[in-house]
Amino acid sequence: MKKLVLVRHGQSEWNLANKFTGWVDVDLSEKGEEEAKEAGRKIKEAKIKFDHAHTSILKRAIKTCNYALEYSDQMYVPVEKTYRLNERHYGALQGLNKKETAEKYGDEQVHIWRRSYDTLPPLLDDEGLKAQNDLDIFKNLPIDVIPRAENLKVTLDRVLPYYFDQIAPELLRGETVLVAAHGNSLRALAKHLEGISDEDIMDLEIPTGQPLVYELDDNLKVLKKYYL
Amino acid sequence: MKKLVLVRHGQSEWNLANKFTGWVDVDLSEKGEEEAKEAGRKIKEAKIKFDHAHTSILKRAIKTCNYALEYSDQMYVPVEKTYRLNERHYGALQGLNKKETAEKYGDEQVHIWRRSYDTLPPLLDDEGLKAQNDLDIFKNLPIDVIPRAENLKVTLDRVLPYYFDQIAPELLRGETVLVAAHGNSLRALAKHLEGISDEDIMDLEIPTGQPLVYELDDNLKVLKKYYL
Repeated sequence: MKKLVLVRHGQSEWNLANKFTGWVDVDLSEKGEEEAKEAGRKIKEAKIKFDHAHTSILKRAIKTCNYALEYSDQMYVPVEKTYRLNERHYGALQGLNKKETAEKYGDEQVHIWRRSYDTLPPLLDDEGLKAQNDLDIFKNLPIDVIPRAENLKVTLDRVLPYYFDQIAPELLRGETVLVAAHGNSLRALAKHLEGISDEDIMDLEIPTGQPLVYELDDNLKVLKKYYL
Repeated sequence: MKKLVLVRHGQSEWNLANKFTGWVDVDLSEKGEEEAKEAGRKIKEAKIKFDHAHTSILKRAIKTCNYALEYSDQMYVPVEKTYRLNERHYGALQGLNKKETAEKYGDEQVHIWRRSYDTLPPLLDDEGLKAQNDLDIFKNLPIDVIPRAENLKVTLDRVLPYYFDQIAPELLRGETVLVAAHGNSLRALAKHLEGISDEDIMDLEIPTGQPLVYELDDNLKVLKKYYL
């Protein structure tokens, strides 16, 4: 029986400020750090021992991963960081206050951007793209993989190759794997694992800081799903 | 010009308790955490940007690595954890108080165990070896690489293959590399890089938490060495 555990990072400084975040590298708030530590304590209590861990290149997920390992006494576990597990890119909305955006574009439009499976939010303009590409965090990425905006469909197309080529082979070898990431990159994984439809997936809310365990069969089909 | 930065972890809980530590997975003290953060701040001030980081599988080095990256704003840097960068294994002395050990075996004997390049300290007995091998931290290591005791010579023979096969190729590609590790695994690296003799190497003390920068030529010979 294979085991995959997902942990969604907790509160970030921009969750607190009610801003669209996406690929902006915002830190966890104190509450977010505490959520990550608590996730680690729950993993320890459940006696889950990982062979590998994966996270995004964004510090709010990396810290969540590090704390989850630290507080479950397994810091020695190898951790891979990949842009493929990054949050959905929120395009030109990144950095904007959600309430102000709703006032400007209307609630309905913002709801579509947030909840539609395949509608893109407004794209980063050339200036925004250049500013983003110049950041150190992206210096070792080919420019072609840095988006101007993503919906969940595009996010899923980005996440799945990493799942198929890195995570799934580990699970198939019988390893226990941790993925510490973001609301939408984890939603993409859950959609694939559970076979959730395009229509229903946006209703799936994975709570922050609560380890979600999937027990999988030899074909990586879900046998059991539960939160710690 | 290639750049390799070494950071020795700061105070651990067993440094505080004046115990031999070696491969025992002891945590940093609060002071040790502060030293690691300060190392990160110095790296940030020096504007050093890493492409890769390497650390041991022991949490006092891993945390030092994580803090050094966090406080220099580069948590996205990939980190490899390897037993090859572990501290020198202190054999049956691990867990013993240094003062009590000196009272039991005599100052001179303990001085030899601590300072001789090629004298082994007392070996772990079968019971100690079994207890060690059963720890989760070693579960993905072949049993043959878990020692009963090490001197600096054996430590160097363990560290160098990792330097040659992982770190050196990164440097040769022009990458800037961080190694966050331990007094003796870093001493082994420094011995090789600087060509220090077997007689002189034990006099080299790399201070804790002070990033040591090596600038290297195309053959990885030292052009310049300085502390931040």
